[in-house]
Amino acid sequence: MEETFVPFRGIKKDLKGRLLCYKQDWTGGIRAGIRILAPTTYIFFASAIPVISFGEQLERDTEGSLTAVQTLASTALCGIIHSIVGGQPLLILGVAEPTVLMYTFMFKFAKDQKDLGQPLFLAWTGWVCVWTALLLVLLSVLGACSIINRFTRVAGELFGLLIAMLFMQQAIKGVVEEFGIPKIEDANQLALQPSWRFGNGMFALVLSFGLLITALKSRKARSWRYGAGWLRGFIADYGVPVMVVVWTGVSYMPVNDVPKGIPRRLFSPNPWSPGAYTNWTVAKEMLNVPIVYIFGAFIPATMIAVLYYFDHSVASQLAQQKEFNLKKPSSYHYDLLLLGFLTLLCGLLGIPPANGVIPQSPMHTKSLATLKHQLLRRKLVDTARQSISKNSNLSELYENMQQAYDEMQTPLAYQIPSSLGLKELKESTIQQASSTGCINAPVDETVFDIDKDIDDLLHVEVKEQRLSNVLQALMVGGCLAAMPFIKKIPTSVLWGYFAFMAIESLPGNQFWERILLLFTAPSRRYKVLEEHHATFVETVPFKTVAAFTLFQTVYLLACFGITWIPIAGVLFPLMIMLLVPARQYLLPKFFKGAHLQDLDAAEYEEASATYNMTFGEDDVHSRTRTPQVDSAEVLDEIMTRSRGEVRHTNSLKVKGLTQTPIDDTKPAYSPRISQQVDSPHLNELRVDKIPK
Amino acid sequence: MEETFVPFRGIKKDLKGRLLCYKQDWTGGIRAGIRILAPTTYIFFASAIPVISFGEQLERDTEGSLTAVQTLASTALCGIIHSIVGGQPLLILGVAEPTVLMYTFMFKFAKDQKDLGQPLFLAWTGWVCVWTALLLVLLSVLGACSIINRFTRVAGELFGLLIAMLFMQQAIKGVVEEFGIPKIEDANQLALQPSWRFGNGMFALVLSFGLLITALKSRKARSWRYGAGWLRGFIADYGVPVMVVVWTGVSYMPVNDVPKGIPRRLFSPNPWSPGAYTNWTVAKEMLNVPIVYIFGAFIPATMIAVLYYFDHSVASQLAQQKEFNLKKPSSYHYDLLLLGFLTLLCGLLGIPPANGVIPQSPMHTKSLATLKHQLLRRKLVDTARQSISKNSNLSELYENMQQAYDEMQTPLAYQIPSSLGLKELKESTIQQASSTGCINAPVDETVFDIDKDIDDLLHVEVKEQRLSNVLQALMVGGCLAAMPFIKKIPTSVLWGYFAFMAIESLPGNQFWERILLLFTAPSRRYKVLEEHHATFVETVPFKTVAAFTLFQTVYLLACFGITWIPIAGVLFPLMIMLLVPARQYLLPKFFKGAHLQDLDAAEYEEASATYNMTFGEDDVHSRTRTPQVDSAEVLDEIMTRSRGEVRHTNSLKVKGLTQTPIDDTKPAYSPRISQQVDSPHLNELRVDKIPK
Repeated sequence: MEETFVPFRGIKKDLKGRLLCYKQDWTGGIRAGIRILAPTTYIFFASAIPVISFGEQLERDTEGSLTAVQTLASTALCGIIHSIVGGQPLLILGVAEPTVLMYTFMFKFAKDQKDLGQPLFLAWTGWVCVWTALLLVLLSVLGACSIINRFTRVAGELFGLLIAMLFMQQAIKGVVEEFGIPKIEDANQLALQPSWRFGNGMFALVLSFGLLITALKSRKARSWRYGAGWLRGFIADYGVPVMVVVWTGVSYMPVNDVPKGIPRRLFSPNPWSPGAYTNWTVAKEMLNVPIVYIFGAFIPATMIAVLYYFDHSVASQLAQQKEFNLKKPSSYHYDLLLLGFLTLLCGLLGIPPANGVIPQSPMHTKSLATLKHQLLRRKLVDTARQSISKNSNLSELYENMQQAYDEMQTPLAYQIPSSLGLKELKESTIQQASSTGCINAPVDETVFDIDKDIDDLLHVEVKEQRLSNVLQALMVGGCLAAMPFIKKIPTSVLWGYFAFMAIESLPGNQFWERILLLFTAPSRRYKVLEEHHATFVETVPFKTVAAFTLFQTVYLLACFGITWIPIAGVLFPLMIMLLVPARQYLLPKFFKGAHLQDLDAAEYEEASATYNMTFGEDDVHSRTRTPQVDSAEVLDEIMTRSRGEVRHTNSLKVKGLTQTPIDDTKPAYSPRISQQVDSPHLNELRVDKIPK
Repeated sequence: MEETFVPFRGIKKDLKGRLLCYKQDWTGGIRAGIRILAPTTYIFFASAIPVISFGEQLERDTEGSLTAVQTLASTALCGIIHSIVGGQPLLILGVAEPTVLMYTFMFKFAKDQKDLGQPLFLAWTGWVCVWTALLLVLLSVLGACSIINRFTRVAGELFGLLIAMLFMQQAIKGVVEEFGIPKIEDANQLALQPSWRFGNGMFALVLSFGLLITALKSRKARSWRYGAGWLRGFIADYGVPVMVVVWTGVSYMPVNDVPKGIPRRLFSPNPWSPGAYTNWTVAKEMLNVPIVYIFGAFIPATMIAVLYYFDHSVASQLAQQKEFNLKKPSSYHYDLLLLGFLTLLCGLLGIPPANGVIPQSPMHTKSLATLKHQLLRRKLVDTARQSISKNSNLSELYENMQQAYDEMQTPLAYQIPSSLGLKELKESTIQQASSTGCINAPVDETVFDIDKDIDDLLHVEVKEQRLSNVLQALMVGGCLAAMPFIKKIPTSVLWGYFAFMAIESLPGNQFWERILLLFTAPSRRYKVLEEHHATFVETVPFKTVAAFTLFQTVYLLACFGITWIPIAGVLFPLMIMLLVPARQYLLPKFFKGAHLQDLDAAEYEEASATYNMTFGEDDVHSRTRTPQVDSAEVLDEIMTRSRGEVRHTNSLKVKGLTQTPIDDTKPAYSPRISQQVDSPHLNELRVDKIPK
């Protein structure tokens, strides 16, 4: 994306791009059929549960002016609008922690002003939203988003990890509070006596760890050994929601003489209970706000505008990382514009505005990649089976699969050449055929192992559509009606879920993987190569990697520390934005360009020569690794590959197969791999396989 | 072992065999140095913790006549004596659950007899022991143990699994009881109010699951990725004891207004507290027992004798499974004789007798196999490093390693030819050399990967010695002095440990693995092959495996059911002994001989033809698998291989390398493996590797 600040140009470009695929956004989603429900429910929980507990938090901090009802309403409303008229449908909107912090701060301020006070609090925030909206619209019109390319991985991943830390912190704080007395309740009731508090706390530990462990395990179900395939698939797709239900059920097991209120459950008014809907008419009161405060509202507005500008763009960016090989265009400017209007709308309705959220947005894309992979896979496997049963030879097989693949591809205006996937398929299968000397013989499973080869050679592709987003938003809206049931969920299950989200957001974050690398025994660093195609492990000296990671970690902790400062806390995104110039002007002074390029590729720096070597590497791993992994694991793994590497491996596998001499590219940290190349075992196998 | 019932012959033979290696039993142990402490502490905990909780159980059921002091004393005393003058030093002695059941039953009986009552209870059990001792001596003299070969895997593994179930049952019962009111305490104290009981129970869940999970994880530490090698080794060796200490520490964390007695801790008198030592002089009172009861004691004595005969022999058998490749002779007859005398001694001292225990005994052997592997490995690796640094070629390298290996081997009278291990090493390395065309060139890591190849080619060997056993027995005795500290362990940690023991005893139990196989998705059954060289998976039709396993499972559940019947419960070993004739006469009617042979090899049946094929198989897997596994995993894995297969793979790997054509032996359930053989990736690698 070139950096241009000509008014409206960015917005026009975005609109043009998205309109071209707007129809397909819907048809594609509908054609996916029932399977679309897997990513939908997965994201619905990831989106609804935090919003509900943020609502609880707001209720405590704003003395009931805002509750889970408002946060849910805002999330649903903004979600539905964005998923229908928004630009990037992969982006998930929701009321986020920073918004809650901001509103808490504003409430504290408003309450102490005698001519505002609690009655006019929402009216005043209405004005804040008006100003915020204005600023956001300005920013988007002036093309502020075109500098998004400067937000390199170093910033995005740091932000992602920070969010993960905040979620984890919330989880821990939550569990600890289960031992204490909640603010809003009266300390006299039976359930709050020391003895029962102790029991409640311990029960909370059981429930939250129970949910965390089972949820994490269920995500890996596809690679389980036990149980039928469909069952494992179902658990992997719907395990997390199911676990929330299961552990909620468990929480009802202790009955005899255990008082009501143990374990503690979600606390929120029903939307229809009195007082829960007073806010909807807040627009009327906005004119009662004294003129001073109307203009004073501009100060918090700037903060929120900066926050949303960054938050919204980075969430969108993380949902469109390049290894997802998205085919549809981005829409940063237009989405920011829309966010402006959404903020205005929320302000007038007296509900806290929603913006693009992390980690839900990247989680959304990942789950859609899984979906797309399943769809493509099923189609191609069927085709291959048919061709093989018809004794067709390799080229025929290929033609059929090419056809099938193309049928799945909808031609779009903006598109990476989509035959890439099959081109590889062809080359590598022929590679196989010639090596086993049966190029024109009928194909059989030994030449072309349907399940495995298709898995290996399929691209990471994402089912880009609007249906999952709009559905999950509608479900969030449905929570308002389902509030009586939602309230049955124990808070401790919530904390477990927070921890789960924090952990789920880690794989694929190269910053996190580098931190782990620091603790990895040197003899085992090669494993990092095998699992994530992390080029830097080979091309960058360990000392440099360590130094870079250390710098990043210190910076992260600094940001984390800032979130503890009541007011400044809201400005932690500024801290992260500071990374952009730091990355551009400061870091190059300390690190070699080539190294920096591998650790944190920035498009404004030209690619360094190390890549040629790198590709060969990736390729070695993909070959040495593939024979061992099971199709299901491949799937799990594709979803957790680290950033920016996948496309390299794909697009250059072919080159690697034929050219790269392996000895030249023996990776620094992988004795196992080099050993494997030399291994006599392979030779023996080879000998055994010469057609007799 | 031929079946002979000539009096004393078996005992003489045992004595002769063990005396020949008696000196080495000590020197070998001492030469192992400090590392011997790893298996020692591991077994000490596995042996002491159940004994303590059995003691508590006895204290409740015998109204304090017997306590943990007596059970510990008996375990230590018998352990020390057996490990010094006993035959098979791998066998671990301890007071077992059946003994506890038996004593409980006898107490209930004695208490109701007006001329016995509680005062004469121990004196009467003294007489029971006298008769039991007599019967055991008779059994051993008459060579009853020579039918041990008829106790095939089907019986031994069923017994092992039954014990595991009993441990797990105890663990679950224990945790559930943490919610209730313990029998011996007064229900009025604060800690037993409903509210605190609830808290206590929940805390118990946290502690026991905490211990279980961390202990299981720590055992796998060698294959962790993070942390330095020595640290991982230490955790794998001492993790379990450390975890017991850690979680005991955690149990002290809740302080403020949590009443004493939460969590509940081990409860036992100190050996020096009054009443704890009245039993030692019980021999004096034995003459006060009415003559009727002296002879009546014969009835329970027969039960106990049968129990001990079976229990002791099977424990010893499971500690000497053939895949451990033990070099020293067994000693069933003599050990049974000694057990007779030990029973007598315990009876006269008024303490419950100890006998060979499961799963501790096999656990002991496994931990010693790990030790031996480490010792051998370190030595050979050093040697190989030296030779390579001296640019010696393969044959020189081999000579040096041969030397080093022989140095480690102490020549014994009874011994499997010990050059087996190195013979392979030579053949396979030469295989490697010729395949890479550098037979006389100086060896380098690419031809001979020190860490990996040595691991692959080392036998499973066991550090057979007496030191670990006598040390752990002494430590158990030390518990008597350390009772004040032992009492700090929460009972819930105990239950977690019970569950841990149950789970630890499962891997390697082929019965268990067959049960899992029933739940394994067909497409993944080949994985069982890769992990455990389970020949039956290929050679026996799945239906047959299922039928056999089902029969065994039903039988197991029947035995388990019986243990619930108060008195008959003691006789469940009889049920299992019934399996011996059933296996010999009944099963052959329903299953093909060859299949039966693979599922449950019995020495009195000649080996079936299926093996030739089988070996080739094993070999395919070991080759296709080895390039992927890490030395540490190899170690973990060797310890958990399923029974009776390891020696096959070792002794026939060479044959497999040269002869077995792979296509003929494509395993029924392993598409992945066959695919791997055909995989183009290997070919490409091969191509790249032809020396240019």
